[in-house]
Amino acid sequence: MAKADNPVSPLAPARFPDLPVIDGAAFAAGAAGVKYKGRADVMLVSLAPGTTLAGAFTRSSTRAACILDAQAKLAAGGDDAAGAAIVVNSGNANAFTGRLGESAVAEVTGAVAAALGVPGGRVLSSSTGVIGEPLPADRISEIVPALVSELSPGGIAAAARAIMTTDTFPKGAAAEVAVTGGRVRIAGIAKGSGMIAPDMATMLVYIFTDATLPAPVLQQMLSDNIDATFNAITVDSDTSTSDALVLAATGRAKAAAITDAGSADGQAFSTALAGVMRDLAQQVVRDGEGATKFVEVRVTGAADVADAHRVAMSIANSPLVKTAIAGEDANWGRVVAAVGKSGAKADRDRLAIGFGDMILARDGFRVPDYDEAAASAYMRQPELVLTVDLGLGDGARTVWTCDLTHRYIDINADYRS
Amino acid sequence: MAKADNPVSPLAPARFPDLPVIDGAAFAAGAAGVKYKGRADVMLVSLAPGTTLAGAFTRSSTRAACILDAQAKLAAGGDDAAGAAIVVNSGNANAFTGRLGESAVAEVTGAVAAALGVPGGRVLSSSTGVIGEPLPADRISEIVPALVSELSPGGIAAAARAIMTTDTFPKGAAAEVAVTGGRVRIAGIAKGSGMIAPDMATMLVYIFTDATLPAPVLQQMLSDNIDATFNAITVDSDTSTSDALVLAATGRAKAAAITDAGSADGQAFSTALAGVMRDLAQQVVRDGEGATKFVEVRVTGAADVADAHRVAMSIANSPLVKTAIAGEDANWGRVVAAVGKSGAKADRDRLAIGFGDMILARDGFRVPDYDEAAASAYMRQPELVLTVDLGLGDGARTVWTCDLTHRYIDINADYRS
Repeated sequence: MAKADNPVSPLAPARFPDLPVIDGAAFAAGAAGVKYKGRADVMLVSLAPGTTLAGAFTRSSTRAACILDAQAKLAAGGDDAAGAAIVVNSGNANAFTGRLGESAVAEVTGAVAAALGVPGGRVLSSSTGVIGEPLPADRISEIVPALVSELSPGGIAAAARAIMTTDTFPKGAAAEVAVTGGRVRIAGIAKGSGMIAPDMATMLVYIFTDATLPAPVLQQMLSDNIDATFNAITVDSDTSTSDALVLAATGRAKAAAITDAGSADGQAFSTALAGVMRDLAQQVVRDGEGATKFVEVRVTGAADVADAHRVAMSIANSPLVKTAIAGEDANWGRVVAAVGKSGAKADRDRLAIGFGDMILARDGFRVPDYDEAAASAYMRQPELVLTVDLGLGDGARTVWTCDLTHRYIDINADYRS
Repeated sequence: MAKADNPVSPLAPARFPDLPVIDGAAFAAGAAGVKYKGRADVMLVSLAPGTTLAGAFTRSSTRAACILDAQAKLAAGGDDAAGAAIVVNSGNANAFTGRLGESAVAEVTGAVAAALGVPGGRVLSSSTGVIGEPLPADRISEIVPALVSELSPGGIAAAARAIMTTDTFPKGAAAEVAVTGGRVRIAGIAKGSGMIAPDMATMLVYIFTDATLPAPVLQQMLSDNIDATFNAITVDSDTSTSDALVLAATGRAKAAAITDAGSADGQAFSTALAGVMRDLAQQVVRDGEGATKFVEVRVTGAADVADAHRVAMSIANSPLVKTAIAGEDANWGRVVAAVGKSGAKADRDRLAIGFGDMILARDGFRVPDYDEAAASAYMRQPELVLTVDLGLGDGARTVWTCDLTHRYIDINADYRS
């Protein structure tokens, strides 16, 4: 919810996309007053019997109670035939809240299970907001019956707004894929990185499809695509206690089940899923705190993919690279230093660095016809591509980041004060 | 050299310390006009026959030509009896300059070797400044004869100024230790982190002693102490291409040789050396770009020292922790998140977090008598201590960092523009 002093990011998409209805998924949003006043701060999703679930979560060792609960429930499996639900609140992260945190999760998911008639083991929850303060679970459980009565297949846009903390725009993306026997749809929403109050540094992502996919196949497709999408973005290198992505397949489309990720249908679906995930991930970066530049970092020629990822993230997280970009300074020497500190295999004398289509340095040295004016002009664009070729192997990775601006300091130094 | 718009850091020591004369070491500073005008930008140190050398250097894979040269020379050993020299310029890092960089190092160290009559393999060099621009080595080699004529045992303070880039104060520290047969002295200088032009993100450290120490013992003592001193500081997580620490022992003191790091003399000397190294390292942080707070992060109870280091650096490098400190916000939840993302073993329910003497959270939860007003009052001090006990083992590490302020953005976004 953009405050008066928190205008919509200059990198925001023109509008929220028209998301397709996913048969079997219904949404409601409501105001529980967890922290914010006068706005929806809870979303409820009910998922029809037969829905399969997959998830990806923060690897933080101080992760929130709701994350631990969701991981345990997904690991336990449970009965797809029973239906499922997702409940999310903004305003409080329910992280580092000890046993109180666990009982809050039990109360909220229990209220949803009772109201919808689904097993508690099939109700996943997320919380996003301040760390270390007890979650007023009763405020959420009290409005669950009202939310259930308002569930609607078209409610996804309102749900995308309810999970915002200080994001400056709601985030959605969709795809449609032709598979054997018909077409299937994918719709996803996300929140994150538009934080005035960065204790709320959570990224939450919910993606729904009407395709029919057994849970292990669904999980495999999610895992196959996470490294090149959500694990390939960074705003400020600070991993949250509460990142969560849940993928639900309702199986209601008039199309054949996809039982093999490697089949033609499986590959087509996975490609479409990756596109939705990449789109949502990039929208999170576009709403990065204080961001004025959207930056794609393309690393090629690494010894392997892990090294390419390491180099790309070292550049994307470098405060010196990010402040140079904010200052529209074509300071490619800082990219060299970020490659050097990454820990990945690199040979100074094989390194090539480019901004957009311009190669600035090659074989470990500035190109003879280096054109500072052209490089500087390029930096004034709002969307930038930095390329690094390590000249060693076939490892490649592209990641996305934003610049580091005065507004980042304002947003993060002024919180709570 | 502090510019008008670059006032001396509020965290600077009151004055440059009186450094003892180290018999066998002589210093000169001069103006070569590498980049800066009207100030000394080259320092020369001559070291008497019998001097042993040890070094520690950046692990960057894109390290500068002078670093590679110094590492090769130290690895090759060489004849202690021949004397040695160190030559350093500011204004140009001679990094990512390919073969031109190598020939520049050869020219500068060759000029010094010829003028002093020491073997080229015993002349180490450093360069600090912009990355990627060819070093005008001739400007430096031209002034070498004049520098040689001005060498003086008392010239160390001027040398400390000559190696500054945009540091806001020169950095020195000293110690004296009683060992068998007499007293030995240690004097060191450093530059770093006070950068208006952060391509000059180099830390250079030179420490001299008149003790008699065989090179392997000297190197062992340096290596033993580096992790808890210079490897335990961070300003912005961006490792330089040019960090270098050289330790030289002239053997001129009237005291017994220290041939065993584990002996009583060896331990006394190592402790004093560690003190000088810690002092210089902390001065680098006190001159951190834009710093207004000096922050000590003490981690205890980790599974091992490596984990303690990982957690401490994760906190010390977290932009969210550092902006909270800049904003004087007692935002301990961000410390929790930084512990969680570190990758070290941690158990949320054993974690304790404190600011100064106040414990804010224990056993994974805010303490019952948590006092926000007292915590906020504490944050207004210029020097802060953050404590984290992981409750798992005996691993401990203390590191030092500074806050992340608007001035950091100014310094780094405005460079070159």
